[in-house]
Amino acid sequence: MNAFRIARTAIAASLLAGTALLAQSPAQTSVSDDPVEAVDPFIGTSGEGHTFPGAVAPFGMVQLSPDTHVGPARQTYDWAAGYRHEDPTILGFSHTHFSGAGHSDLGDFLVTPVSGDSVPLEAGDDKTPGYRSRKADEVASPGYYAVTLTDPGVRAELTAGTRVGVHRYAFPAGKAAHLVLDLRSIIYDYPGKILWSSVRIRPDGTITGSREIRGWATPRRIFFAMRFSAPLTSHQFVSTEKDILYKGFKGPGRGPETLASLSGRALVAQLDFGPLAKPLEVKVALSGVDEDGAIANLTSEAGDFDTIRASTRAAWNKALGAVKIAAPAPMRRNVYTALYHSLMAPSIWSDADGRWRGPDDQVHAGEGFTMHSTFSLWDTFRAEHPLLTLVQPEAKNADFVNALVAGQKTSPFGILPVWQFGGKETWTMIGYHAVPVIADACLKGIKGIDCAAALKAMVASADYAPYGGLGDYMKLGYVPIDREPEAASKTVEYAYDDWTIARLARQLGDSATAQRFEKRAGNWRNSFDEKTGFLRARKADGSFRTPFDPTAINYGSDYTEGNAWQYSWFMPHDQAGLFRLLGGDAKTVAKLDAMFDYDNSKIDYSHAEDISGLIGQYIHGNEPSHHVAYLYNYAGQPWRTQERLKQIVDSQYKPTPDGLAGNDDLGQMSAWLVFTALGFYPVAPGSNEYVIGRPFVDRADMALPNGQHFIVTTDGLSDANRYIGTVMLNGKPLERAYITDAEIRAGGTLHFTMQATPNKAWATGKKARPYSMTGYGR
Amino acid sequence: MNAFRIARTAIAASLLAGTALLAQSPAQTSVSDDPVEAVDPFIGTSGEGHTFPGAVAPFGMVQLSPDTHVGPARQTYDWAAGYRHEDPTILGFSHTHFSGAGHSDLGDFLVTPVSGDSVPLEAGDDKTPGYRSRKADEVASPGYYAVTLTDPGVRAELTAGTRVGVHRYAFPAGKAAHLVLDLRSIIYDYPGKILWSSVRIRPDGTITGSREIRGWATPRRIFFAMRFSAPLTSHQFVSTEKDILYKGFKGPGRGPETLASLSGRALVAQLDFGPLAKPLEVKVALSGVDEDGAIANLTSEAGDFDTIRASTRAAWNKALGAVKIAAPAPMRRNVYTALYHSLMAPSIWSDADGRWRGPDDQVHAGEGFTMHSTFSLWDTFRAEHPLLTLVQPEAKNADFVNALVAGQKTSPFGILPVWQFGGKETWTMIGYHAVPVIADACLKGIKGIDCAAALKAMVASADYAPYGGLGDYMKLGYVPIDREPEAASKTVEYAYDDWTIARLARQLGDSATAQRFEKRAGNWRNSFDEKTGFLRARKADGSFRTPFDPTAINYGSDYTEGNAWQYSWFMPHDQAGLFRLLGGDAKTVAKLDAMFDYDNSKIDYSHAEDISGLIGQYIHGNEPSHHVAYLYNYAGQPWRTQERLKQIVDSQYKPTPDGLAGNDDLGQMSAWLVFTALGFYPVAPGSNEYVIGRPFVDRADMALPNGQHFIVTTDGLSDANRYIGTVMLNGKPLERAYITDAEIRAGGTLHFTMQATPNKAWATGKKARPYSMTGYGR
Repeated sequence: MNAFRIARTAIAASLLAGTALLAQSPAQTSVSDDPVEAVDPFIGTSGEGHTFPGAVAPFGMVQLSPDTHVGPARQTYDWAAGYRHEDPTILGFSHTHFSGAGHSDLGDFLVTPVSGDSVPLEAGDDKTPGYRSRKADEVASPGYYAVTLTDPGVRAELTAGTRVGVHRYAFPAGKAAHLVLDLRSIIYDYPGKILWSSVRIRPDGTITGSREIRGWATPRRIFFAMRFSAPLTSHQFVSTEKDILYKGFKGPGRGPETLASLSGRALVAQLDFGPLAKPLEVKVALSGVDEDGAIANLTSEAGDFDTIRASTRAAWNKALGAVKIAAPAPMRRNVYTALYHSLMAPSIWSDADGRWRGPDDQVHAGEGFTMHSTFSLWDTFRAEHPLLTLVQPEAKNADFVNALVAGQKTSPFGILPVWQFGGKETWTMIGYHAVPVIADACLKGIKGIDCAAALKAMVASADYAPYGGLGDYMKLGYVPIDREPEAASKTVEYAYDDWTIARLARQLGDSATAQRFEKRAGNWRNSFDEKTGFLRARKADGSFRTPFDPTAINYGSDYTEGNAWQYSWFMPHDQAGLFRLLGGDAKTVAKLDAMFDYDNSKIDYSHAEDISGLIGQYIHGNEPSHHVAYLYNYAGQPWRTQERLKQIVDSQYKPTPDGLAGNDDLGQMSAWLVFTALGFYPVAPGSNEYVIGRPFVDRADMALPNGQHFIVTTDGLSDANRYIGTVMLNGKPLERAYITDAEIRAGGTLHFTMQATPNKAWATGKKARPYSMTGYGR
Repeated sequence: MNAFRIARTAIAASLLAGTALLAQSPAQTSVSDDPVEAVDPFIGTSGEGHTFPGAVAPFGMVQLSPDTHVGPARQTYDWAAGYRHEDPTILGFSHTHFSGAGHSDLGDFLVTPVSGDSVPLEAGDDKTPGYRSRKADEVASPGYYAVTLTDPGVRAELTAGTRVGVHRYAFPAGKAAHLVLDLRSIIYDYPGKILWSSVRIRPDGTITGSREIRGWATPRRIFFAMRFSAPLTSHQFVSTEKDILYKGFKGPGRGPETLASLSGRALVAQLDFGPLAKPLEVKVALSGVDEDGAIANLTSEAGDFDTIRASTRAAWNKALGAVKIAAPAPMRRNVYTALYHSLMAPSIWSDADGRWRGPDDQVHAGEGFTMHSTFSLWDTFRAEHPLLTLVQPEAKNADFVNALVAGQKTSPFGILPVWQFGGKETWTMIGYHAVPVIADACLKGIKGIDCAAALKAMVASADYAPYGGLGDYMKLGYVPIDREPEAASKTVEYAYDDWTIARLARQLGDSATAQRFEKRAGNWRNSFDEKTGFLRARKADGSFRTPFDPTAINYGSDYTEGNAWQYSWFMPHDQAGLFRLLGGDAKTVAKLDAMFDYDNSKIDYSHAEDISGLIGQYIHGNEPSHHVAYLYNYAGQPWRTQERLKQIVDSQYKPTPDGLAGNDDLGQMSAWLVFTALGFYPVAPGSNEYVIGRPFVDRADMALPNGQHFIVTTDGLSDANRYIGTVMLNGKPLERAYITDAEIRAGGTLHFTMQATPNKAWATGKKARPYSMTGYGR
């Protein structure tokens, strides 16, 4: 194997160009019966997107995808999905990946094919040969990925079912086929991360094993079972750990080649098959419970590579088919890929038999629902979960909520998940945003949820004093910055979450809880400085912290991954209240414009990884800005929202690997685009309202979970016609800037007539404005 | 707390003297209804015994006992049970201990009471103050231990049920009561040993947690649940680990004092109760499965300290009462303490609900038996398990066998346990000695065992080529020393184990298997050098390895913890065959005498820890010698066996803390004494014969598992009358040097008339001699 001394950047450019061609599908604007053809899984795999190109079933436990990461350099961020499209070499294929996370982990159970007589057991890097290979002819579609590993001369294909991944490797004729199974390989590696691992060959040839990882979620336990289409001819299990102080007594076997089982902190397996006449298929199941669970999961999904590939393709066509989209090819590709990225997480976490490992590290039995994990709630409460309530079955949405409530029941702290994966809490980001996800689902009437029990879990989280300054928040009405970092952001996010508790409590007739949390929902005011017109961090003595710079962004400062510009709009439940503090509609619009048009030329945000996709101080690459363009509507100027949305969509989404302006964040960036493309957006989940923006597709037919269809149609949509002229709901003029969830679920049509000039008369009155807690007089 | 600068050796002497007094019970020679009074748990806790003085129920999962170990100095051996009687200070009380192992581990979940305002969270040592305390007024009896920790002024009492330990701490009046729960403390500590640990307080005040340990058995997982008789007033969970490369995101809480849960590699908990009017009781259950299992185990054994203490005392009286012994007090104390030490392992390993964690690290469900672990089989196949077949219910013995077979079924290697604890294999010592344990139980007709299935498990172990040179053994007929260490010992131990397979196969009518293993049973000859008259290690080319020194003992040499002197007698199934090679009875007796009378003055065995209790080259402190004194019988000179037994019993067993000549080895040293005291010994388990030695008790009434009684009586027993005059079985003269298992199980009396001179006519003929594979013409 040659060394990989070719400059990475030179390769990158050619690959980016090449892949765009490879992934191209026929241009079309008509509704297709095969939406998987419109998806390009490479979108977001370069630039800031942090998505992965590999094979995954909708919400599948397994994300089987290539890893390209080398060494620890910036792995925490840039290689969050283990892969960057511009990397010239591939390390191998592992079974777990985040789609668009802002932090790195996973990459479990890396498998790499090797051909010939020499089998390197180290990965190698740009300078050192190893099992890593250069790549060519990379293609991907939902549930399928293929690449040629040019060094071993192996065509590698991947597909995935719900709890299985299937590899297919075509080895060069006559050359011995091997696999390296590297239990040491992990995304974002550092000493001590792998607490323990094991690998074992069972009498029937099944290989099983496990890892325990001290990573982002700790301790994370993951198990696998692996079977092959050809018999193993020999194998080696090797431990490469050095400096073990006490090695214990000697196990059986004179050397590693005969061992049936090995455990340790640095294991690698060589699996030999000899020359093969047919491609080798490797079927791998995961489990968070145990090896028996992995074996049962493997057995539960029958079929070979082609069978699994076909069934997963069908599953994707069904899932993506929930919205039939007609649009010019680039936009159609953008939106379908966004929908694809919206349908990956939360991931299924329970085994086929219903067992799952919880945040308490204990195994629990299923209780009438399918457990899910990978909850990136600070991101996904905004648009991702509201989107799923429209495009996924009610039972699936009930699963998400029931998984969150089960997470609270099994939490050692008695609180709902914050940012959870592998069944474990990571304590990443702020807020208790499982609360709006549950409230939104309950308020929309999703069946299969015990909402009264869920409300108790929500209140338990909101009242858990040790968490993130909540004790002070409950006493003072705000989180004091001298006692808790990011206090300003926490105060407003808690207040919004509290409002959703109040909304659900009202619906359930629990007026005591409703009143208590309605009061807390107004707490955002306690951290708002009317004098400067910004949300600011306040100290326990009541004073605002100084010095104050509304453009300053630092981790652990007054704000969370943002500054006063972005966070001063985070009272999605009470924009009317905010606008009054800001001095009315005109001043509010001026402030919104000042945000979008801010001159950043003198500011350097390179230290803040998540700050990307800037339009002035509007930062589309991170979530706190996501609702802001829609706020002009609340000031009676919907045409300004329409202008801003065009500006954002044009600049922040492209059908290329570097086409996402920020981390996809488990679907939130993508869900924003899906909603926005359809012409409306859930600014305040829990309000049961969607604020009207403007459509970006010619036609969209949503097949709703209740069997109804809600169809968006447009007249005159073009680059030039960027303003709404009229809006018709079910054939009648709609003279307000929002539609309700009930209106959508009832089925019907929403027709937009687009024009080149603003309609400054449409939906400008107080009563036309979307929900605010303190109202507009309606 | 003061520093402990008092010289350890000075303290030791006074404590040894003091304790002998404390443990004294009224002298008696009559049969007592309360045999627990005759037991002194301090026997073996100093010197070489490696026993522990704490509280344990018969075969209990929990061994709650004081730990005294300091630092890593020789912890691997001298502090194998965590405790040495001469140590002046106590670290605390932990829940798992080996009884007499030759290697160190366990000491899980150390609890130490602390009083007053300052709570040290480090143990301290001789130079540094900490929670460690000086001790006074130490007492122990089966299921009960008490000591005064003079530094905090706390009287500490311990008791244990099957899966629970209960602590009772009387704190000084008016002083705040605290407990330190140190999850870092472990017997034989070294960096990296604790892979992971966790501690959690549940809403009902139950504390649960776990450890994963890279120790003697790896990875060993153990879980606990803990409840208190008084409410916790506050607590702190602290992680003291340094140099963590990646700490993850911050959990809830501003400081450790508010955390409900913590995990890491170095955890300690401070539990506060305030001043208490009554002693604090702490009830702790263990589980190898999970925390829920520990909670269920805690709940399954109801009652407070006094209740558990009383029920465990009753259980000990019942278990010890299987043999009612009349003897002078010191001998009675020796034998009852030996019986006590014989009834601790194998330990119960399954949870109350039947679940257990297997050698594959997976959780398995119970299948009609209670899972056990802590199998020290190289030791215990000799006399410990044969003793248990006589003094424990058949169901219990079936449990042991079924646990071994379940261990084979769940072994990643498909073989029976070798030296197993915590459900995990340690690969310690040699042989496949689960095989004779199973064969012995099946041949004795113990009910509740599927012996045909067990035979398959035995054969699978004996045929597993990668284990300990078995591949070569099967090809060459011996283990070649140039390919496998300790080859001479392995060859003869395999041959004996093979003979037991053949015996069981014959009984089951499987003559093909019987013939194959009868052939293998003769393999001991392939490593026997007729020229020198010693068992010797042979190379693959057939030559014996040189240079040869029959007194040389080195780890990993030709022999296992021994030399040619001890190992040349290890063909317990074929002494006749051996004696013929040695040149007949007279030459054999001369060689036996040469062994016992060897002058060791020029030999230094201080490098070999297990070599203790030397009588010439007879080494009673380690197992290979254990049957040798009985071999004179096989040469037709029973009176020489009688002489040697007197010599051994007088010199190797004393009713004092340093009274055991070697590691008790989970009951084997003790079972030797119990059998020997009764007058017979199972030289070749699987033969269904016990070789007659001579009795050391006046009378013994064995209540057999089938309800029959077998009563040993003596006439004229005294120090002077050390020879057998006559033996009567059920009133008829017994003119042979053995009795059969069937004779014992039928019930009856065995009466010895003792005299001062040898009866050289008794049981000297060929037909009077015990079983040998190649026979004596019978």
